[in-house]
Amino acid sequence: MKLLEDRMQKDGKALPPDIIKVDSFLNHQLDVALIDELGKEIYNRFSDCKVTKILTVEASGIAIACSAARLFGVPVVFAKKGERKNIAGDNYTADSYSFTHGTSYTMFASKKYITADDTVLVVDDFLADGNATLALKKIIDDAGAQLAGCAIAVEKGFQSGGKKLRDMGIRVLSLAIVDSMEGGVFTFREQND
Amino acid sequence: MKLLEDRMQKDGKALPPDIIKVDSFLNHQLDVALIDELGKEIYNRFSDCKVTKILTVEASGIAIACSAARLFGVPVVFAKKGERKNIAGDNYTADSYSFTHGTSYTMFASKKYITADDTVLVVDDFLADGNATLALKKIIDDAGAQLAGCAIAVEKGFQSGGKKLRDMGIRVLSLAIVDSMEGGVFTFREQND
Repeated sequence: MKLLEDRMQKDGKALPPDIIKVDSFLNHQLDVALIDELGKEIYNRFSDCKVTKILTVEASGIAIACSAARLFGVPVVFAKKGERKNIAGDNYTADSYSFTHGTSYTMFASKKYITADDTVLVVDDFLADGNATLALKKIIDDAGAQLAGCAIAVEKGFQSGGKKLRDMGIRVLSLAIVDSMEGGVFTFREQND
Repeated sequence: MKLLEDRMQKDGKALPPDIIKVDSFLNHQLDVALIDELGKEIYNRFSDCKVTKILTVEASGIAIACSAARLFGVPVVFAKKGERKNIAGDNYTADSYSFTHGTSYTMFASKKYITADDTVLVVDDFLADGNATLALKKIIDDAGAQLAGCAIAVEKGFQSGGKKLRDMGIRVLSLAIVDSMEGGVFTFREQND
């Protein structure tokens, strides 16, 4: 999506080997108008899927998820992060590991809000190694719900997550795929929009 | 705000002495249409303030903040939560304590995104003892920015935060103020809208 790629070139920072800084518009300060455009593109690309719910994980995915959900006319559920020992109540849980932060955590979502009747679109800001996305998929699987696909703002194309998910037959939309950051410059993968 | 009070009566749960469950529409599953109405009310009530930025804290405040920010035409900044020892870089920091979770944490926000030129509206889902709101105020003060006020979805009127902030001369808008939960029933404070 050219709008996002252009914004990353202008305001983002490529910090080799693997850090993409987009905190001026996507995951600390939020440019709501831009995020609404991302939501619109996600809606356009998944409007054929009879999505009943959007699932994301706190915190950076929430804004994009809401911008898309408004157009689908469905609720957002955001999985929370915690330590397994502190998670009470009737929740689906899935363990994940953040390479960025070097920490393990457990995601959880109430069984009330993802059910076997749902067709769920996963939305998140980043796809890197795929751990977070696969944890969200586990929650959907455990609920007996259907996974419509995954819509991601920025995919680190030089990490394994995107390939892993696509090889599993999951429909993955990444609005920008960074294939290289050599010399601190983003090189985006060409995509057939 | 009648719309929110009615929704709390219908889908919320009052768990005395102090737990308000609104996770089916406000802080786990998100009813984006409702949240947009909250954002609209916040905009209407603070549209005279020349707000340049909306500040919230991850994670539940983000959706409401975005719905309001869209109307103001300004960015959202969401403060992140972490442990003080892990916070690197050029950030404003403020310590807070969550009575709900019984945990201390440090909020931080990049110095790049809150500056002395800003007039900042604080937006959050809950106001209880006021610790989180005061931590956000500290970030704004440290930046030399102006605090336009605080817009909150649900105030626990039986806790001290609202009084504390109003006694400091801060303009506080709470869209619903719960004064009592006796017998598991919400009693809302009458407000002159």
